[in-house]
Amino acid sequence: MKEKPVVFSLSSSVSVADEVIKILNLDKNETIVRHFADGEILAKPSETVRGKHCYIIQSTCAPVTENLMEILVFCDALKRASAKEITAIIPYFGYARQDRKSKPREPISARLVADLLKTSGVDRVVTFDLHAAQIQGFFSCPVDDLTFINVLGNYFKDKLGTKDIVVVSPDHGGVVRARNLASHLDATIAIFDKRRPKPNVAEMCDIIGDVKDKTCILVDDMIDTGGTIVAASNELIKRGAKKIYVGCTHPVLSNDAIDKLENAPIEEIITSNTIKLKRESSKIKVISIAPMIAQAIDCIEEGVSIAPLYEV
Amino acid sequence: MKEKPVVFSLSSSVSVADEVIKILNLDKNETIVRHFADGEILAKPSETVRGKHCYIIQSTCAPVTENLMEILVFCDALKRASAKEITAIIPYFGYARQDRKSKPREPISARLVADLLKTSGVDRVVTFDLHAAQIQGFFSCPVDDLTFINVLGNYFKDKLGTKDIVVVSPDHGGVVRARNLASHLDATIAIFDKRRPKPNVAEMCDIIGDVKDKTCILVDDMIDTGGTIVAASNELIKRGAKKIYVGCTHPVLSNDAIDKLENAPIEEIITSNTIKLKRESSKIKVISIAPMIAQAIDCIEEGVSIAPLYEV
Amino acid sequence: MKEKPVVFSLSSSVSVADEVIKILNLDKNETIVRHFADGEILAKPSETVRGKHCYIIQSTCAPVTENLMEILVFCDALKRASAKEITAIIPYFGYARQDRKSKPREPISARLVADLLKTSGVDRVVTFDLHAAQIQGFFSCPVDDLTFINVLGNYFKDKLGTKDIVVVSPDHGGVVRARNLASHLDATIAIFDKRRPKPNVAEMCDIIGDVKDKTCILVDDMIDTGGTIVAASNELIKRGAKKIYVGCTHPVLSNDAIDKLENAPIEEIITSNTIKLKRESSKIKVISIAPMIAQAIDCIEEGVSIAPLYEV
Amino acid sequence: MKEKPVVFSLSSSVSVADEVIKILNLDKNETIVRHFADGEILAKPSETVRGKHCYIIQSTCAPVTENLMEILVFCDALKRASAKEITAIIPYFGYARQDRKSKPREPISARLVADLLKTSGVDRVVTFDLHAAQIQGFFSCPVDDLTFINVLGNYFKDKLGTKDIVVVSPDHGGVVRARNLASHLDATIAIFDKRRPKPNVAEMCDIIGDVKDKTCILVDDMIDTGGTIVAASNELIKRGAKKIYVGCTHPVLSNDAIDKLENAPIEEIITSNTIKLKRESSKIKVISIAPMIAQAIDCIEEGVSIAPLYEV
Amino acid sequence: MKEKPVVFSLSSSVSVADEVIKILNLDKNETIVRHFADGEILAKPSETVRGKHCYIIQSTCAPVTENLMEILVFCDALKRASAKEITAIIPYFGYARQDRKSKPREPISARLVADLLKTSGVDRVVTFDLHAAQIQGFFSCPVDDLTFINVLGNYFKDKLGTKDIVVVSPDHGGVVRARNLASHLDATIAIFDKRRPKPNVAEMCDIIGDVKDKTCILVDDMIDTGGTIVAASNELIKRGAKKIYVGCTHPVLSNDAIDKLENAPIEEIITSNTIKLKRESSKIKVISIAPMIAQAIDCIEEGVSIAPLYEV
Amino acid sequence: MKEKPVVFSLSSSVSVADEVIKILNLDKNETIVRHFADGEILAKPSETVRGKHCYIIQSTCAPVTENLMEILVFCDALKRASAKEITAIIPYFGYARQDRKSKPREPISARLVADLLKTSGVDRVVTFDLHAAQIQGFFSCPVDDLTFINVLGNYFKDKLGTKDIVVVSPDHGGVVRARNLASHLDATIAIFDKRRPKPNVAEMCDIIGDVKDKTCILVDDMIDTGGTIVAASNELIKRGAKKIYVGCTHPVLSNDAIDKLENAPIEEIITSNTIKLKRESSKIKVISIAPMIAQAIDCIEEGVSIAPLYEV
Repeated sequence: MKEKPVVFSLSSSVSVADEVIKILNLDKNETIVRHFADGEILAKPSETVRGKHCYIIQSTCAPVTENLMEILVFCDALKRASAKEITAIIPYFGYARQDRKSKPREPISARLVADLLKTSGVDRVVTFDLHAAQIQGFFSCPVDDLTFINVLGNYFKDKLGTKDIVVVSPDHGGVVRARNLASHLDATIAIFDKRRPKPNVAEMCDIIGDVKDKTCILVDDMIDTGGTIVAASNELIKRGAKKIYVGCTHPVLSNDAIDKLENAPIEEIITSNTIKLKRESSKIKVISIAPMIAQAIDCIEEGVSIAPLYEV
Repeated sequence: MKEKPVVFSLSSSVSVADEVIKILNLDKNETIVRHFADGEILAKPSETVRGKHCYIIQSTCAPVTENLMEILVFCDALKRASAKEITAIIPYFGYARQDRKSKPREPISARLVADLLKTSGVDRVVTFDLHAAQIQGFFSCPVDDLTFINVLGNYFKDKLGTKDIVVVSPDHGGVVRARNLASHLDATIAIFDKRRPKPNVAEMCDIIGDVKDKTCILVDDMIDTGGTIVAASNELIKRGAKKIYVGCTHPVLSNDAIDKLENAPIEEIITSNTIKLKRESSKIKVISIAPMIAQAIDCIEEGVSIAPLYEV
Repeated sequence: MKEKPVVFSLSSSVSVADEVIKILNLDKNETIVRHFADGEILAKPSETVRGKHCYIIQSTCAPVTENLMEILVFCDALKRASAKEITAIIPYFGYARQDRKSKPREPISARLVADLLKTSGVDRVVTFDLHAAQIQGFFSCPVDDLTFINVLGNYFKDKLGTKDIVVVSPDHGGVVRARNLASHLDATIAIFDKRRPKPNVAEMCDIIGDVKDKTCILVDDMIDTGGTIVAASNELIKRGAKKIYVGCTHPVLSNDAIDKLENAPIEEIITSNTIKLKRESSKIKVISIAPMIAQAIDCIEEGVSIAPLYEV
Repeated sequence: MKEKPVVFSLSSSVSVADEVIKILNLDKNETIVRHFADGEILAKPSETVRGKHCYIIQSTCAPVTENLMEILVFCDALKRASAKEITAIIPYFGYARQDRKSKPREPISARLVADLLKTSGVDRVVTFDLHAAQIQGFFSCPVDDLTFINVLGNYFKDKLGTKDIVVVSPDHGGVVRARNLASHLDATIAIFDKRRPKPNVAEMCDIIGDVKDKTCILVDDMIDTGGTIVAASNELIKRGAKKIYVGCTHPVLSNDAIDKLENAPIEEIITSNTIKLKRESSKIKVISIAPMIAQAIDCIEEGVSIAPLYEV
Repeated sequence: MKEKPVVFSLSSSVSVADEVIKILNLDKNETIVRHFADGEILAKPSETVRGKHCYIIQSTCAPVTENLMEILVFCDALKRASAKEITAIIPYFGYARQDRKSKPREPISARLVADLLKTSGVDRVVTFDLHAAQIQGFFSCPVDDLTFINVLGNYFKDKLGTKDIVVVSPDHGGVVRARNLASHLDATIAIFDKRRPKPNVAEMCDIIGDVKDKTCILVDDMIDTGGTIVAASNELIKRGAKKIYVGCTHPVLSNDAIDKLENAPIEEIITSNTIKLKRESSKIKVISIAPMIAQAIDCIEEGVSIAPLYEV
Repeated sequence: MKEKPVVFSLSSSVSVADEVIKILNLDKNETIVRHFADGEILAKPSETVRGKHCYIIQSTCAPVTENLMEILVFCDALKRASAKEITAIIPYFGYARQDRKSKPREPISARLVADLLKTSGVDRVVTFDLHAAQIQGFFSCPVDDLTFINVLGNYFKDKLGTKDIVVVSPDHGGVVRARNLASHLDATIAIFDKRRPKPNVAEMCDIIGDVKDKTCILVDDMIDTGGTIVAASNELIKRGAKKIYVGCTHPVLSNDAIDKLENAPIEEIITSNTIKLKRESSKIKVISIAPMIAQAIDCIEEGVSIAPLYEV
């Protein structure tokens, strides 16, 4: 009889992990996590992990650094406790935007984080919609970069059909993602083309592609402060868009982003629970990724291909 | 008195290296490169490198694998001969398109190549316009990813001015690059939006953005078989473009690409010598990167910032 | 002419670093440190470090994890910017108390942190009075573990002479440290022997050694919440101690520790600035370690023995 | 059906290993160990280990270096013969006293040995009462640091009861160990406080804590030449101790230590067989650790927590 | 029930792999291998390998570098697809002649290749008659260096008996191999002693040992251009040898080697299919190594000793 | 002004090191080496090595393991004391005969030792006449494998001229070495062809090549117990050899080898001082390698090619 895997949750992803454990019909394994007065973190499993396959579910969302450190410390504990294999399931992979040297002397923190995870003993990573797919290559271990785009595609197709839809990328780097989503809907795409003609001159904003009288779906991998999406929505309305929907995988939603989004001319925002929302909002619809994570764990344990979960 | 660095060329970049050596007023150091009957490669320096800073100039263009192996074998020789520091100057970094798992079970060969270079003893990499900037993060050593975009920008500005210009990206992934070039010319951008509605249905091709009566500059990091660029040129003309120019950093130009480009409705193709052209063509203008490489070596030796060479 | 080293400060140690830079008569090199809304950290040097010896001064005190991450990110930036050598000067090395598996499944976070620093590119570490000297062996790079004990010894000798002094260790693990300080004063030692006879029975507290009518110097490597030191002071007074002084290297002083110490029967607390005090206190005397750091940097640059700074 | 593990003994621990193999009801696997005329060592298994879990039992006691090299060479043989997992059971871990740089330019040989073991292919270490618990952190692999203190505690409790007992640490560094043993006996502790007021002045020796009319148990992790323990026994008697017992985990007993101990005012010395005694002595009682090793192997094979074997 | 291993073939060893798969009664697993116009290689498995033991059969014969790169890229794909264990079966290990620095500044490419394989994720290597047995030590993973010498020995014994046979080494480095083969036939040996008395003086050629009126078996690990063997055959005939047979493991046979051998005074050449012949030849008898590879895979899967396959 | 390197000697090579220091006109740097009662070794430099190039001279001759451990411990000390570069000069490299798996489950200890040296911090190795040249490839750092063969060649040429000389290899593996020496003397070679027809049948011994009435020079890399050389000498005399000389690089000379050699029919044995002779012998002429080591250090410091010291 095959031994059951052990699934742990750390601070940021408790409810997702609970859902996963329920779907997989596993017993809940307790983690002991302590944050001391000076900020030191202690994280360890409460029961033996000797010889077991361990899965840690933890997004490295805010507070990013502390959530990351929880994983590192916990993996060190697992490794020293003779865990057989450690899979870090990081639904939202923080620091992903620092993925290249875009200015002189910048760090490539996403690679650094990949190396830190390896140093701590991680054997495999499962994540969702990395900011850039190339970040997979920052790891030398296997990375399963699952995608929420198909879920978004199915949702919008059911809701909006495929007529008079345009999928809009809010910046130059998101065009491939927009095209991927548009393909589910047989839709055209449009792109925000922001640029600053000269230093200290106001930014100009063009939209390339046709949005007039269309239902626009703004898509991005993450929404952070919400500023970009709100401005884009306003601009789209100004240019004659009929209705605005927003789809994104990671609801970072820093500061007062939820308020800002609620006040913008947006019908609905579809997102996932890779990051737990600070508060519920009638405008934000969350679709859980727990079933996908559960299926991924199942595939890994059974030696079955995980491809349907990441192929667009 | 400071010791002079040693600059070597391997098979693919002899003439660029000669130019660099001349600019820096260095003596030429001979490399011994042998390809045996069965395909084994021997590469080594002809004189002592003990304690020296060594620079190897070699693009990993066709034949990609053999050119890569020349670097690996040569670095092993340098390392075992007690070279102090090895900088691989790889103007064109091959295998860059395999930079993520886009389909199940794909390798990430660009990361693999980065690791192979490290294994062979490379301490630093200098390259030009990596296919994806994130590839910098595939290395744990310093990478100076210089750019040819500014050279293109200056050239087109001189030649075409800044009126009625549109910079066109031939695919979704090249939009950031198009915007970077367009900013030099205060121009708008357009994007080819190719998609296949269903498997086994003909690909559809939209152009997003305005190209009618405009001078179009198609820009890409590399031109391989030329198919994409030729088709794009024809399409642009069909949609009323006035004139077509092409700018790219890496003239891969496999098979009969040069012929195809000569027969296409393109005024001129501006490119660099990161890869040596199979033959000259009156339509293809090559601007040498040797001065940039020479300046980079100089900055490294003098401990001066190299930023002006890679900031867009 | 020898090139000057570059000294950087990160968030926790700005004033110590300023002092060091002044003593060494160096120019100040700016660091750019940004903490984003979601907690991500960006840290990089503002000017070129190509080919330079870089020193980073940063205690990993509260907030421990963020201060650690600043070092990691900054080192990644230095490494990728071709710094020649990176020395992390970490006056207070956080996570040091997690230096062994004292309970099942615990991490050894101090070793983890040592490995993380190595992963980020650190070549050498300078620190003060590690919680356990064995932590030096958690690093594979050179560690210079300087000591503040001699400074304490000299201060107390000047102030209190060597008569009727007893140096008191507040726990079993600090006896070697107490003996080291006592040797400067030709003094005897005493030890708090706390123990819990059975689970759920109140802790008993003995003092081994003679404290009646003596001037007691309580010594520890760090004071965290202050609870142990305050209780020890009260106990010593109860047992007839004449006067209580406290010496420690690292004023962690979490929560309301300063208030508690001010209200305890303690004459004076001598400590260093490895950690910046939240507020000044007339009872707490701080002696700067900046001169020792400056001397260490000087020794490293000149290739001179650093031993006088760490030999007790 | 689960495959049986393979247990090997090398030169220093043959009889312990035989006991372990008997307890676990395993077949004996032969090792071939040859020491050549010039001191080279050859060590290899006599039968296939392909795909097996291998346990090597070998203390690195005298001759320390040769016993260590036997492990290194044997592990290299196991690794190259495709063993699946290698656990080094090192009941006495030599070089443990070189665990920090206590003087300038000292090596940290305990860390070095940990790295050598890793280099040779060791996947896990099982040991007893490391000289400093922090040495666990010198390894990046799992370390199970079992303890003999509980065995000592039970033995002394049975023999001496809990009245008028004082547990004595012979030096400053052993106080935590003394307290751990004392807690089994509900006893107080005392500490030898040796110090040298000035260089070239005779060492002074105080005892802190009450020993008069008490039954003293001197406890240490190891007894090497016996000098410290014999001097301590004499001193305790001089100060009115009633009877002296000694407990230690590792009977190093170099040179004529057994003779010296037999002539000292000591009732009985309780120790283990982590190191085989050069000769029996009516005064030295040896309690075998083989049952604990057998239980550890069983836990590792069954994936059960090993904690009861190392928690004090 | 035990899971079946997965056996893949890459470009150079398709037919051997097919034979192996048939012997082991496994299903054929498809590999996807693409060589692009510019020489880049893509290699990946067509179905899931998650959690499986993978065997790749590929000789690094001509084109050596491309065949090597196929392995490296394919292993990267396997590793990232979560294969459990990767065994590279490299019947002919190219670059083996570059196994030491025989001239200044030479690379040791055989070690480099060993490191490249490790970098790409190889866990174990199976190969045949390495050019020098020491190359096993270039790997840190297990290497099973199987031998074809026993097959040759049995063949020649059956065919030629053991009378008047002399086994001849064509150079100084092959004497051990000649003795190994000769021992099967109870035969004497002879050696070609080529030397160049002074630079620019014609090479002299002695034969040490008795060949007159004998049946000579020239033996070598590989025949490359055939020049050495053909010259040796002529020389042997000139010195009165009765008949010449040739035995070798690896038929490299570059350029027109087959033609040259057919025209030489050689009765028969016995070799293996570690390398596929460019064309059949009535003079060359090929004995398949597929049964030995199949047996090796079986031993590895079953945890049985593989020794009979490599002991001479 | 360039800084002087620091040359250390450990236990086995004190007199060679003294000679080297004198030739290079350096100050003597003291090493502190202690062997404790239980066999633990402490080795460290007595003065600062911060930022210096360090050379350690130590053969790993008998007692091999202890001499090796001295290097490992000393390098750890140097590394932690911030030495800039560590070159291990190991005139005789022990464990070299375990350079391949010649029987099942054997270790490859020579590779293990190479890895141990790397682990301890060695940056470069200088050695003499490695048992197999391939051992160079066991290291990933630079190895300068100097040769004593040229010294032997010159000596014998001066003494014996070039007439009627035959260089004899005592076994199959030494033929290349014999040829190298013979080339200095324009001589022929002969080979001992020992073999055992069947298990438990007496070994047969042929000599291939002409030795009658010749002056024979038996050559080997090392003489261990002397058995092989003595038997070979007797056999050569029996077959009519005129006179026997012996040349070897490493006088291992275990047990009573010197006595045996003195009683054999050998005119003279020429060897080096890579290993210090247990006693002088009128029959053994030792030529010092110190000048070659001094020249090697000089070349390394000056960045000059070392090739003349290792090219045959």
